[in-house]
Amino acid sequence: MIEKRNPIPVSDAIQRVINHVQPLPIKKIELEKASGCILREPIIATHAVPPFNRSAYDGYAIRAEDSTGASPHHPIAFHVVGEIGAGQVPEVPIGKNEAYRIMTGAILPEQADAIVMLEKTTKTNDGFTVLESLQPGDHVSFKGEDAKKGEVLIEPGTKIHPGTIALLATFGYANVNVSEKPIAGVLATGTELLDVTESLQPGKIRNSNGPMIQAQLDRLGISCRSYGMLPDDLDACMEVMEQALQETDVVITTGGVSVGDYDYLPALYKRLGAKVLFDKVMMRPGSVTTVAALGDKLLFGLSGNPSACFTGFELFARPAIMTMMGSKEPYLAHIHATLGEDFTKNNPFTRFIRGIWKMTKQGVIAIPAGFNKSNAVSSIARGNCLIVLPSGSSGYRKGMQVDILLLGVDQGEEKWRL
Amino acid sequence: MIEKRNPIPVSDAIQRVINHVQPLPIKKIELEKASGCILREPIIATHAVPPFNRSAYDGYAIRAEDSTGASPHHPIAFHVVGEIGAGQVPEVPIGKNEAYRIMTGAILPEQADAIVMLEKTTKTNDGFTVLESLQPGDHVSFKGEDAKKGEVLIEPGTKIHPGTIALLATFGYANVNVSEKPIAGVLATGTELLDVTESLQPGKIRNSNGPMIQAQLDRLGISCRSYGMLPDDLDACMEVMEQALQETDVVITTGGVSVGDYDYLPALYKRLGAKVLFDKVMMRPGSVTTVAALGDKLLFGLSGNPSACFTGFELFARPAIMTMMGSKEPYLAHIHATLGEDFTKNNPFTRFIRGIWKMTKQGVIAIPAGFNKSNAVSSIARGNCLIVLPSGSSGYRKGMQVDILLLGVDQGEEKWRL
Repeated sequence: MIEKRNPIPVSDAIQRVINHVQPLPIKKIELEKASGCILREPIIATHAVPPFNRSAYDGYAIRAEDSTGASPHHPIAFHVVGEIGAGQVPEVPIGKNEAYRIMTGAILPEQADAIVMLEKTTKTNDGFTVLESLQPGDHVSFKGEDAKKGEVLIEPGTKIHPGTIALLATFGYANVNVSEKPIAGVLATGTELLDVTESLQPGKIRNSNGPMIQAQLDRLGISCRSYGMLPDDLDACMEVMEQALQETDVVITTGGVSVGDYDYLPALYKRLGAKVLFDKVMMRPGSVTTVAALGDKLLFGLSGNPSACFTGFELFARPAIMTMMGSKEPYLAHIHATLGEDFTKNNPFTRFIRGIWKMTKQGVIAIPAGFNKSNAVSSIARGNCLIVLPSGSSGYRKGMQVDILLLGVDQGEEKWRL
Repeated sequence: MIEKRNPIPVSDAIQRVINHVQPLPIKKIELEKASGCILREPIIATHAVPPFNRSAYDGYAIRAEDSTGASPHHPIAFHVVGEIGAGQVPEVPIGKNEAYRIMTGAILPEQADAIVMLEKTTKTNDGFTVLESLQPGDHVSFKGEDAKKGEVLIEPGTKIHPGTIALLATFGYANVNVSEKPIAGVLATGTELLDVTESLQPGKIRNSNGPMIQAQLDRLGISCRSYGMLPDDLDACMEVMEQALQETDVVITTGGVSVGDYDYLPALYKRLGAKVLFDKVMMRPGSVTTVAALGDKLLFGLSGNPSACFTGFELFARPAIMTMMGSKEPYLAHIHATLGEDFTKNNPFTRFIRGIWKMTKQGVIAIPAGFNKSNAVSSIARGNCLIVLPSGSSGYRKGMQVDILLLGVDQGEEKWRL
């Protein structure tokens, strides 16, 4: 008997997955380990930035009013009373026509309200002359101009990148609240699979999906627990799956989700008592992608075909894992591109083509990354994006505008919009 | 006396840096550790992909000619002689009107040249009937259709991402040649600097550049050796610098490169006998960015101002480090964007504005990420790109087309084109 499955749109499938995901608990880690994690607290300015009025240049700190009327014909002289390096604190305020020699970043002395740049001065015996008037505030970085004390600068749910680290360091966040990272279990199923170290044998292929998913997880900063490879055997698979469910937060399998006699994953989900969220998606490749939920754990049943497996991970597992980490932008970023080649295969379901995008003088061009069947592997290696070709047209021609999903990009999106 | 420096264009400065860089030696690492490294050998197909003619669907393997003339009014019957799961090898060829039950990915039996999809058949006592003619090749994935044996699929110099891993696994690259990773030393200079754990003191700020650069290195997959913070003192700095040059491949300092009395880096380079490649660049922020070479080592003297420091790293240190790792795409990727806000500050030099890009219905919009002086830190945290505003115009208005450099993106470019 042939099982009839009910295909649902990609956006519905994604929503069903996300509905089953909760952010993991928060933990505190040291700042130097926080890069790439998802921030789970706001960054609040613990003090004004700059924390004091400071010099933006090397020069002299003066009272601007004392320079009033200065010109090449009427130079005005200043007497230097001291020197302030960055990090030093001047002891006395300045008076009329007095100045401090001051370095970039140093605190202004009391009464000073402008900086004369060094190169705009002429040295004298006890100081310098200026040839033009300054206004109060000239070349001064004012206390709080970058951030005011108490201001919320970065919201929780953002990925910590180098700029975030700089801001956290500025405010003394030696430790920072981030998400615990989910532990993902990866299991490749298929009697045809060989390990990467094995010689090729008739009818068999090496397991490329397992290492690929590990790398996809690695790209999200997630470590994985590999459960290796299993032949198409329900009992063996059941045992490993039960172990994986004990030891991990999310289990990703490859293979066994089609409708063939050896596709045991549907039976496995039934035996585990897992609720299948969907087992058919209106997409190519990867229409058999299946996701099931058991308690608070998700089981991703990705296709055994590499291109389908890759796409299933990026569309479904990635946003689920990012949401578990507390990201508020869990979806792949997308941009518009011009299709650089005809793609005229018929499109009963939305196609996600492994593609290559490049910036040209005409803007972003995206071309399919070579051979593009669901079992293709070379195109995944060549590609840096997924070209999205919605169903309903088989007439995708060179020059048409398409959406592309960017791969290997920190940036994400709050909503799935395709 | 005020030192006169000779500013050079950004592209010249980048070229001077790259001219001093050689790729590091090659080393072999295990496949599971290769993600994110730069590939230093081509990926060559060690066998055809697929390695044999295989079934693209679950169904029956037949000789197409036996189905000629089949129609709803003239069903043709086939006798099933056996079953082939993926990974299994059929023992006997098929004859006239014989078929094997076959699973997705399984090798075709001898003589078979087409697959009837399971859902297109009607079961009989000893087999099935078909209602339509098949052509040779229907639903067959042919040996070598994805890759031919000996084909060069990926060139050296590309970053290893999940798709690359899948391809390496397919061909049994259990170990893979990648670049050794440079060790970068990071030293923050400035008497005004406090550690992230210290309380704020008058005239002082916490060291944000050191942790930021560590995170920028981390984003490239490079680990760094931190030499902490030093006050503005030539002798102390000299000692640490000599140690860093012994222990690392590239030394990145922050601060001390301006023309103030406490800016010791120029004197330091002189004392070390390092050749200054440039000490003034026609850019904002970071015009004082200085790069020196000593033997085969590069010394990056980045500004102490956080935004200038960040930009100097991304424009100069990043491509140098990527080139050391053997990357053939060492430069930041760029795309066009529409400026989302006026930016009317005057532009004596090219400006690199920390910006935020977003995809909208009107295409990619980029807006400055708030307060954008060279000493700003909040904008680095908010930003996900650098908006490039060439010098010569102060009239950058909302709606104009600009180039943006993408941050946090695996993708790179072969040439610096801005």
